[in-house]
Amino acid sequence: MNSSLLCDFYELSMAYAFFKQNRHKQIVYFEVFFRKAPDNASYAVFCGLEQIIEHVNNFSLSRSDINFLKNTHKFDDEFLNYLLTLRFSGDILSVKEGECVFANTPLMIIKAPIIEALLLETFILLTLNHQCLIATKASRISQIARNKLLLEFGSRRAHGESAAVNGARAAFIGGFHASACTLVGKNFAIPISGTMSHAWVQMFDDELSAFRSYCQIYKDNISLLIDTYDYKNGIKNAILVFSELNAENTIQNYSIRVDSGDLLKISKYIRKKLDLAGLKKCKIIVSNALDEFIVEKLLKNKAPIDAFGIGEKLITSASSPIFGAVYKLVAIEKNGKIIPKIKISASSSKTTLPYFKKLIRYYKNDKACFDVLYTHNENSKNYKNLVAKNLHELIFKNGKLVYKLPSLKNIQDYHKKSIDSLNFRLKKLQNPSVYKVKISKKLKNLQKKI
Amino acid sequence: MNSSLLCDFYELSMAYAFFKQNRHKQIVYFEVFFRKAPDNASYAVFCGLEQIIEHVNNFSLSRSDINFLKNTHKFDDEFLNYLLTLRFSGDILSVKEGECVFANTPLMIIKAPIIEALLLETFILLTLNHQCLIATKASRISQIARNKLLLEFGSRRAHGESAAVNGARAAFIGGFHASACTLVGKNFAIPISGTMSHAWVQMFDDELSAFRSYCQIYKDNISLLIDTYDYKNGIKNAILVFSELNAENTIQNYSIRVDSGDLLKISKYIRKKLDLAGLKKCKIIVSNALDEFIVEKLLKNKAPIDAFGIGEKLITSASSPIFGAVYKLVAIEKNGKIIPKIKISASSSKTTLPYFKKLIRYYKNDKACFDVLYTHNENSKNYKNLVAKNLHELIFKNGKLVYKLPSLKNIQDYHKKSIDSLNFRLKKLQNPSVYKVKISKKLKNLQKKI
Repeated sequence: MNSSLLCDFYELSMAYAFFKQNRHKQIVYFEVFFRKAPDNASYAVFCGLEQIIEHVNNFSLSRSDINFLKNTHKFDDEFLNYLLTLRFSGDILSVKEGECVFANTPLMIIKAPIIEALLLETFILLTLNHQCLIATKASRISQIARNKLLLEFGSRRAHGESAAVNGARAAFIGGFHASACTLVGKNFAIPISGTMSHAWVQMFDDELSAFRSYCQIYKDNISLLIDTYDYKNGIKNAILVFSELNAENTIQNYSIRVDSGDLLKISKYIRKKLDLAGLKKCKIIVSNALDEFIVEKLLKNKAPIDAFGIGEKLITSASSPIFGAVYKLVAIEKNGKIIPKIKISASSSKTTLPYFKKLIRYYKNDKACFDVLYTHNENSKNYKNLVAKNLHELIFKNGKLVYKLPSLKNIQDYHKKSIDSLNFRLKKLQNPSVYKVKISKKLKNLQKKI
Repeated sequence: MNSSLLCDFYELSMAYAFFKQNRHKQIVYFEVFFRKAPDNASYAVFCGLEQIIEHVNNFSLSRSDINFLKNTHKFDDEFLNYLLTLRFSGDILSVKEGECVFANTPLMIIKAPIIEALLLETFILLTLNHQCLIATKASRISQIARNKLLLEFGSRRAHGESAAVNGARAAFIGGFHASACTLVGKNFAIPISGTMSHAWVQMFDDELSAFRSYCQIYKDNISLLIDTYDYKNGIKNAILVFSELNAENTIQNYSIRVDSGDLLKISKYIRKKLDLAGLKKCKIIVSNALDEFIVEKLLKNKAPIDAFGIGEKLITSASSPIFGAVYKLVAIEKNGKIIPKIKISASSSKTTLPYFKKLIRYYKNDKACFDVLYTHNENSKNYKNLVAKNLHELIFKNGKLVYKLPSLKNIQDYHKKSIDSLNFRLKKLQNPSVYKVKISKKLKNLQKKI
């Protein structure tokens, strides 16, 4: 799939009109920001930059794209020929993937000829809106689950292929340890795991034979799924098989998985049975419509669970499935000067903060204290005892990629550092406190003036 | 992206174990069904078959897929060589796209050697779970909006690229008339539309110039977006420009779009102003976080709206973002006999209905009365005055595609017929009645016996 035509048609309509008016090379500044994090969280996790870089680098309409556009009878040949050779020639600034970010701050700034900036809008938004959503959800779960193993189980309930694959990527950045999806192992080198489904057990005349049979083939990483028929019989059969194998001494990684029922009650029951049988190293994995709220409850009630398999509610961010990042014009260049632009709304929350800005985060002993928005050309203030960090990296300069992509593991580590730098009150599931984002005096005056 | 490896790793783990036990050619029957429609609806819309057919037809692991699997050190070469040449060789039965379907009925039946059936699970589920979800949402909106024009505006909030593109496809099947996304116009010949965003208006010194300028380029299909600064001024400027152009007599299709604020109040205000100015043919398009519930309220209050642009809440099915179709083993062949298989659950709703079944819908004067589940080989009953229809089409026979794919427009029409055949009580947003699905005596006895 060539994604260059994955743009809203109004972008092409406007591009054509600017072209006909010979304004298509005018330099503009668009900014990506969000107004509210999903789940009323105080923060979101920035994610998706790598896929955007790929899109921008490969941006190019094919001959067949152009033919399709010609057949809409909306554009003339001069414009279509122009589109055929169009490549991105602008600058992109962006927050790094894995960074914790806050509402109404510029996550990405696109400075480019208007026609190029317009045609990137949809792809940039859909990529960020998807991956920030899932990374944020994963980060929330990871904060609650702390030292537990987190497995991404969502592919089958994802909104299509790229939701499954890039969703697993975002979950890994947010703190998940492995995925059930084979393709993400190949594409991203994310650890993958998976042993059996209920179908395995059903394929045999009885559960005991199914478990024994599986252990004849696999000598390590064995997870027996015990609730195909009845978990009490299931754990009995599993213990029998594990005991026959002297699993405690012979198998490196072995576990029980439960995929239904009252997971608190069942996990306690199973742990007791396993311990009585001397299978102390046997781990317990649970799954079934989990999210951060259920995980929190299970752990508060001391459920003896070692690993959570989290699927549908992670991969769709079910409790809050929309990430509302927007792409707004904040300035244009005219005669070499940058002119701020604003969009006003009846609901003041939708009024934009104009101008080409920079975003600085201040830290005290590695703890994030507040962010400040400055105009791009003012000096950021020095605060005593605080360390300032410019959150924007230059990604493209005059259409050329100048940013070195970190490995996925590095991005995951970077997120870990970023989330650890936030005060714990910002990370509560209920009523988190609000992170301070200040606006420089110069920027405030500018907004008032407009 | 080769999607053949888009499977859960447990499918490969099980496939390998069956292979090592020389059971991988055993014929099995898997069934796809769902337990509850999204939004507590009484029905869902079946959608996604075309993409599944493509996947099954192209199913083939590449050399690089095999290399990746080899590097997991879980499989031996004999198995990997077998995988390299593996193609689908089984049968698939399926409901037709666009059909209204009900909980706990077989939407798709896969009869194949176990290894092939296992490896298709994830892709089949993620495709159906995504497209059924969006088609169902679109169908619900379409039922409420009746004769209004419905525009799909969701790309930017979709969960990634395939969610945007196939989501627009599903929305079209569910009854939407056009999409804002250019690529779906190219891929699916879905009508596309789009004129301007707020950025157009911001690019000019004032709104009036922006509107005038747009109308210098476009002579038809003009939609002026009036809420960049203030809708009251916006409609004034739009009316001025439309009047200058004598739009009522010179422009075929022209409209006003509003994307914020109290859409009931604003649409009434605008309609009045337009009518007073003699612009009676000017249409009103609204957008901004709409769904079936808001559309219902607007229309009940007689909002003079001609078209709805529906984005994020459609493309994510925000009020109910998970479609829970599952893929369950219902039978295996042994010595030429079909042996029913069941999965039992503590929650009886999760216990499966075993065996290879057929699904018959009975109609009276084109109205659907009830569905009946039979075993695959019993005769369906004749009811007086009722016409019976087998809802399953044979799609693949011995690995060969034997089904002729209908055009997308045909699928949309088919859905229209299917939804029209349902009693209106089934289509209410609140407390819809429940459609009757009967189970044949033979099938019931079979389940009890197991």
